Amino acid sequence: MKKSLSLFCMTAAALAAAALPAQAEVAVATRAITQAEVVEAQQGWCQALLDIGAAYTQGGRPAAKALAEKVIDSAYGYQLGPVLFKPTLTVVPQTFRTTKAGALSYFVGGDAAFPKDEGFALKGWTRCEVANAAIFIAGDSASSLGNVSFTGKDGKVTTVDKTWSYVKDDAGHLRIVVHHSSLPYAPR
Amino acid sequence: MKKSLSLFCMTAAALAAAALPAQAEVAVATRAITQAEVVEAQQGWCQALLDIGAAYTQGGRPAAKALAEKVIDSAYGYQLGPVLFKPTLTVVPQTFRTTKAGALSYFVGGDAAFPKDEGFALKGWTRCEVANAAIFIAGDSASSLGNVSFTGKDGKVTTVDKTWSYVKDDAGHLRIVVHHSSLPYAPR
Amino acid sequence: MKKSLSLFCMTAAALAAAALPAQAEVAVATRAITQAEVVEAQQGWCQALLDIGAAYTQGGRPAAKALAEKVIDSAYGYQLGPVLFKPTLTVVPQTFRTTKAGALSYFVGGDAAFPKDEGFALKGWTRCEVANAAIFIAGDSASSLGNVSFTGKDGKVTTVDKTWSYVKDDAGHLRIVVHHSSLPYAPR
Amino acid sequence: MKKSLSLFCMTAAALAAAALPAQAEVAVATRAITQAEVVEAQQGWCQALLDIGAAYTQGGRPAAKALAEKVIDSAYGYQLGPVLFKPTLTVVPQTFRTTKAGALSYFVGGDAAFPKDEGFALKGWTRCEVANAAIFIAGDSASSLGNVSFTGKDGKVTTVDKTWSYVKDDAGHLRIVVHHSSLPYAPR
Repeated sequence: MKKSLSLFCMTAAALAAAALPAQAEVAVATRAITQAEVVEAQQGWCQALLDIGAAYTQGGRPAAKALAEKVIDSAYGYQLGPVLFKPTLTVVPQTFRTTKAGALSYFVGGDAAFPKDEGFALKGWTRCEVANAAIFIAGDSASSLGNVSFTGKDGKVTTVDKTWSYVKDDAGHLRIVVHHSSLPYAPR
Repeated sequence: MKKSLSLFCMTAAALAAAALPAQAEVAVATRAITQAEVVEAQQGWCQALLDIGAAYTQGGRPAAKALAEKVIDSAYGYQLGPVLFKPTLTVVPQTFRTTKAGALSYFVGGDAAFPKDEGFALKGWTRCEVANAAIFIAGDSASSLGNVSFTGKDGKVTTVDKTWSYVKDDAGHLRIVVHHSSLPYAPR
Repeated sequence: MKKSLSLFCMTAAALAAAALPAQAEVAVATRAITQAEVVEAQQGWCQALLDIGAAYTQGGRPAAKALAEKVIDSAYGYQLGPVLFKPTLTVVPQTFRTTKAGALSYFVGGDAAFPKDEGFALKGWTRCEVANAAIFIAGDSASSLGNVSFTGKDGKVTTVDKTWSYVKDDAGHLRIVVHHSSLPYAPR
Repeated sequence: MKKSLSLFCMTAAALAAAALPAQAEVAVATRAITQAEVVEAQQGWCQALLDIGAAYTQGGRPAAKALAEKVIDSAYGYQLGPVLFKPTLTVVPQTFRTTKAGALSYFVGGDAAFPKDEGFALKGWTRCEVANAAIFIAGDSASSLGNVSFTGKDGKVTTVDKTWSYVKDDAGHLRIVVHHSSLPYAPR
């Protein structure tokens, strides 16, 4: 039984392969972004946020800051130029965090140059979940729009509207070059 | 005097030309986006918003709607797929306007399918200005982040945080594929 | 039997879906090019070449020309600007066919403006096969390099070295924007 | 005099700035490729070819090879994956040089794995000139098609048909990812 089952599915695979004759040996490089890569980058961001919070609990702000710096260096595109980052909770005249220092301060605070930052990653989040509304893949850049929900220690969930845009870097990793986050509009 | 002046500047131009020998006759096609094109698209969006308002004043919602549809068809990318549009004033469960119908309703209202939309373009704006914080040009797509300020009939100015991403279409025009707009965060 | 078979394959699909939670309902647009799309475009080019030859046999040059024009309009990017086309058999001063007229003449001849063109598609090819050496996907553009082999009526095979680059147009179809073809180097 | 001259040209600059109000302070990153960058990359390739030849004259093949390796590392995209390189003078079964080793051998020879390579850069070229027929800029990738003419020690000029495609790397430099070169077709 199982054998004929496998054979059936192999046949389907073989049919697919037949449509791409001799492609197995072709050397292929791709800088295009897939939907799966966007989703993986989003989940990586969420995990990193929780990890920075855990580092804070265990090692205080220095530990959180050290990890946040690593995360920003690997997940954002500040090496490529300004990042179009509008965090959820920033205010005039420091709303936009186009430099790495501004992003770092937003996540972990403690920077006198950004006096209003308390450190978004230090708020004790226990869960971070992404629900995409739409994804637009332009080629070697891609954008997502949707909700991200953060669960606090008290179980309260904060949901934000979030846009991320990524480019694929030379090493094949996605880097955030646009990040616009905002609390839902609350009509008065 | 003027002549030697001109000669000087011509010399500079000639030097530049010398660096690109024989480029004059080269046939060139470009799908890359320039900063100037981004700025022009932003100004076009602002002007269109005011124009829809003026159409409303003169011809009521039908006139406004007819113009808004034209504007969306030419300035947004709904022909290319979902647009990642999070308008300033939308609420759950219709926060995200990934379809043309949702965008149209946001700008001019009057669609029973989107009951909370009053028509953002019908609010009597007299001025619309963009102040960019940063621009990221990925190639044939580009993003901007900054403030857009709307002046009302009473002179009151409403400023929002806004991200736009554009792709260049086959005709060489920019189309908005990401539009995330939000009121500034107001700490309680 | 068939039912359990289906169930098994559905389970596999469900596992894949689980890795991308809630992605099923996400609206996704992609302008990225896949390897399969490149291969499909290559096979389409080969088929079109044979089809133009068949049209010639049946309806003479007028029929071949009419079809070739359709093919060029749908498979090349002359609508987007100059195409970087260096056909296999062209010579100075008309080596490069950056205009649609030049491409059309190369394939079907009969244009006094390109007196040396005999019509490559009219040579009675019976088979056209692509063997890729490498593919580079830049995002919404992609290139392939390899051999294309043409079998003549007498069974003789002519093999050329061929580079194609494609862009994805607004309708989601690949269009050739670079096409460099050459006979193998023959050391004397 | 000189002062008023400077003032005049500054005025021109100010006029240009006025067309992009407030853009001066905007942080801008661009991965788009310009025509000037393509031309500069071409001239860099020509110069590197002559430099490798000069290194050979002065230091023999070891010196030429050391320089060629540097040139390939900085001007080609082998770090990004296979390069679609079809050199002018290669033959079956080593026509396509999709690896760095294959490119290096083509330019400087002396690699037992590529026994027919004599070293194209060691032929004593005294001049290398590019004449573009057309350029297609896809965004952060771009292609050129045209002639490249090499002048030998004896003054004889060899002209080839050449396609190059470039991508812009994370550091903002162009890298060759497609290079198809061929001798002009010679009808018998």
